[in-house]
Amino acid sequence: MAAYSRYDQLSVSLDRSAPSSLPSQLVEQIRGLIASGHLTPGDPLPSTRSLAERLNVSRGTVVFAYEQLVGEGYIVSSRGGTQVAAGANFARLPQDQGLPASNPLRGRPEPAPSPSDQGVIDLRPGQPDTSLVATASWRAAWRAAAAQPGLTYPAAGSLELRYQLVEHLRMMRSVLREPDDLLVTAGARDGFRLVLTLLRRRVRNRPLRIAVEEPGFPSLHRIPLAFGHEILPMPVDSQGLNPAHLPSGEGRPDLVLVAPSHQYPLGASLPLARRLELLAWAQDSGAFIVEDDYDSELRYVGDPLPALASLDRPSGRPGLEAHPANWSNDRVITLGSFAKMLAPGLNLGFVLLPRHLRSAALELREDTGNPVSSISQQAMTHFLAAGGLRRHTARMRRVYRARRQLLLEELTGVRGIRVLPMDGGLHAVLELTRGSASLERDLLARSRQAGLLLAPLGAYWSTRGQGQVGAGPMYGLVLGFGGVSDRQLLQGLALLKEVLKS
Amino acid sequence: MAAYSRYDQLSVSLDRSAPSSLPSQLVEQIRGLIASGHLTPGDPLPSTRSLAERLNVSRGTVVFAYEQLVGEGYIVSSRGGTQVAAGANFARLPQDQGLPASNPLRGRPEPAPSPSDQGVIDLRPGQPDTSLVATASWRAAWRAAAAQPGLTYPAAGSLELRYQLVEHLRMMRSVLREPDDLLVTAGARDGFRLVLTLLRRRVRNRPLRIAVEEPGFPSLHRIPLAFGHEILPMPVDSQGLNPAHLPSGEGRPDLVLVAPSHQYPLGASLPLARRLELLAWAQDSGAFIVEDDYDSELRYVGDPLPALASLDRPSGRPGLEAHPANWSNDRVITLGSFAKMLAPGLNLGFVLLPRHLRSAALELREDTGNPVSSISQQAMTHFLAAGGLRRHTARMRRVYRARRQLLLEELTGVRGIRVLPMDGGLHAVLELTRGSASLERDLLARSRQAGLLLAPLGAYWSTRGQGQVGAGPMYGLVLGFGGVSDRQLLQGLALLKEVLKS
Repeated sequence: MAAYSRYDQLSVSLDRSAPSSLPSQLVEQIRGLIASGHLTPGDPLPSTRSLAERLNVSRGTVVFAYEQLVGEGYIVSSRGGTQVAAGANFARLPQDQGLPASNPLRGRPEPAPSPSDQGVIDLRPGQPDTSLVATASWRAAWRAAAAQPGLTYPAAGSLELRYQLVEHLRMMRSVLREPDDLLVTAGARDGFRLVLTLLRRRVRNRPLRIAVEEPGFPSLHRIPLAFGHEILPMPVDSQGLNPAHLPSGEGRPDLVLVAPSHQYPLGASLPLARRLELLAWAQDSGAFIVEDDYDSELRYVGDPLPALASLDRPSGRPGLEAHPANWSNDRVITLGSFAKMLAPGLNLGFVLLPRHLRSAALELREDTGNPVSSISQQAMTHFLAAGGLRRHTARMRRVYRARRQLLLEELTGVRGIRVLPMDGGLHAVLELTRGSASLERDLLARSRQAGLLLAPLGAYWSTRGQGQVGAGPMYGLVLGFGGVSDRQLLQGLALLKEVLKS
Repeated sequence: MAAYSRYDQLSVSLDRSAPSSLPSQLVEQIRGLIASGHLTPGDPLPSTRSLAERLNVSRGTVVFAYEQLVGEGYIVSSRGGTQVAAGANFARLPQDQGLPASNPLRGRPEPAPSPSDQGVIDLRPGQPDTSLVATASWRAAWRAAAAQPGLTYPAAGSLELRYQLVEHLRMMRSVLREPDDLLVTAGARDGFRLVLTLLRRRVRNRPLRIAVEEPGFPSLHRIPLAFGHEILPMPVDSQGLNPAHLPSGEGRPDLVLVAPSHQYPLGASLPLARRLELLAWAQDSGAFIVEDDYDSELRYVGDPLPALASLDRPSGRPGLEAHPANWSNDRVITLGSFAKMLAPGLNLGFVLLPRHLRSAALELREDTGNPVSSISQQAMTHFLAAGGLRRHTARMRRVYRARRQLLLEELTGVRGIRVLPMDGGLHAVLELTRGSASLERDLLARSRQAGLLLAPLGAYWSTRGQGQVGAGPMYGLVLGFGGVSDRQLLQGLALLKEVLKS
């Protein structure tokens, strides 16, 4: 049974007369070696070159198989080579621990898709490429953090982490603030929820009126609805939200949720004139602006735009701005996270608050508890302090810029769609030139049949909001290029062109 | 300047004629070597034996100094020896990164107490001993998890983790349930908050009436108050909560928060008769019981008592219980966490729900997001699967049982106090035999002056609740023995006896 002794003796053999493809055979056999325990976590795999030579197949065949296994969570690739992933033998744990044979969990490794998903290319948006996150600096940061499980932090979060976040905001977002202006959160949703609880108290517990961009980011829109608040969808145009359309007076919103750097999903960046207009509106009406700063570091045309928070100054206090201690915001609350730059599962971010909300926010956080683990906070502190995020951001900009270029090249001149400008981010919007709900539905269904998953553009328009104004939804396809390899992206685009032709 | 080359050449020297004690000199010099960068994170320190020999001091002197530095976060001890902690040189980071000289954060290592706290023994309750958590198995779990930053989990939490938690509940708490009956939370507070949001919807958004134990756990009581719910304090006696006192009819509570295994802080364990009475009351009145199962694994007299959830069965469905798939709860919601067994900063736990609340809870969690990092979830899965928690629990039971014994021996016969029975947990309650608010206050103040921090027993009675019934507060001292070393505990007890004598 010792079929596996040295890694260059990986016990696989391919059958060219078999009905399944060579890469599929390779995937299945390696998966089998892991499931059976012949390969265990940490075991190295041969290089693609050497395995291809030994099996007498093209290197691409092995590359494809490895990528598939990485995607399924069985193996991991790093600069040091490819090896069996740490969780890859989870499927065997229940058995080892005496789980009754009837347990439905038996043999189901969580990261792997179900058999019917095999070979499907998932270009739905929202996923960054996380394959390059676990650098030496990342691992060292977590190693150091895990060694100190006993640390606890104040409800605002670790002071050292907030110091690092202040530096990050200064360098990347042109925002000059102090650690006490930030609360560490479990990501944008945790921060938004905190803000809603805080502001609801200020209006004596009536539901809040919240203006949101239409179309907009569905996951943030679900939070106010879950707590019984009212959503006012505001149509966006090619420049993003138009502050001129915001109601004032009695029916004015209590807050506006906006993504000024990169409107989701259409991609507009709010021009300076509109930013100033929005701030003036908020000052006049006493409303707050919640800035969703979700992927602004990923900009491929020009430099990242400063955060809206950098323009916001306390009103009526000219002359106080000479000293950083007086820099504050009056109307803008910024939600930050590392979901797009690092990994969504990290669940770590921050909320930047106007100074006049600081003590109420901190008190609320003390009452309800900060959900972020001290180990995550320590690890992120180490990673930021070592420059890990800066390097990763620079690297991912290059990776994503190349994918964006590839996508533009592949889709230019394809009939029936118009690629919206994509200056940043991790997805493309392909508007149907003769769009309708039924054509969109039809294209999605045919893509799925061809093994390609995409998101429908029309779905980003709210159906649950009230007081809808402006034009109805646009129809098209939203295509994410963050969570796949270059090869998968190319395959997906080829499939898409086939579907669009027919 | 290369004063430090090999660890057994640690450049320290003691002056017996100096005004400060030998341990203090040692602490200060090692702290200085770390602050100046002569010792860096990971550097090993000499063994207490060898350093004592070289300095010609008692080994106790070195032990004391090391413990002080561990407490301050400068060094860590493990089976492999003592070394400089990973975050110990944080104080130097801001300087290295060009922080302006005026920045108030400069030179302030977060884990270290302020200079005025030096030498203070903190016996306030709530802290477990975390010095033994970072075993090889713990570190391996985090290492593996950090290598897979890209995994994301459903809103309920990782299926593999929930499977492990089901096993944990079965083994430790006699509760037989399925992974779908659990949601992974960021600890008991996160779970309680979720429950409150869920139940508030069922009463059409009016504030909930929540019966709580009086005295009780302050950190959980703050959550309903923060969201505008109503608290009904229910006095406890030597057997814990008395269900006979729970109101029924119109003014009945919507839920009861109770710690059946180990009443906080008085320590009672709810007897079976009262448990059944409580369940019957909840069935009759349609109310829910939220079981705060916070430290039930730490029981020193007899075995851990089964969770209340293990007694709760759906009513009116006899015969369905033959198959585990039909085991559920009807009225009991259990909050679990690893704050006491591992570390409070971990912020990881679970909520166990009756099956009829499952889909509503999951939908809410999907709308608002699960705040727990996927890396924490993976690490905990690995740690549980490898038996790390089981071993740690067994070990800590021995450690804490010995400390409890020491405490009982030291305090037996001390006049003026009565040590309440302490069958489990991490703290002792010392009731003043002639208690009054002023005597309690006076004792606390004098303890603080002597360098000893304790918690006042009277503070566990709510002052913000409504509808208070029963006797007023008891007066005394609450003394935690989790977060200190045996030596510190002994020193603290000696100080306490001095204070009580005077």
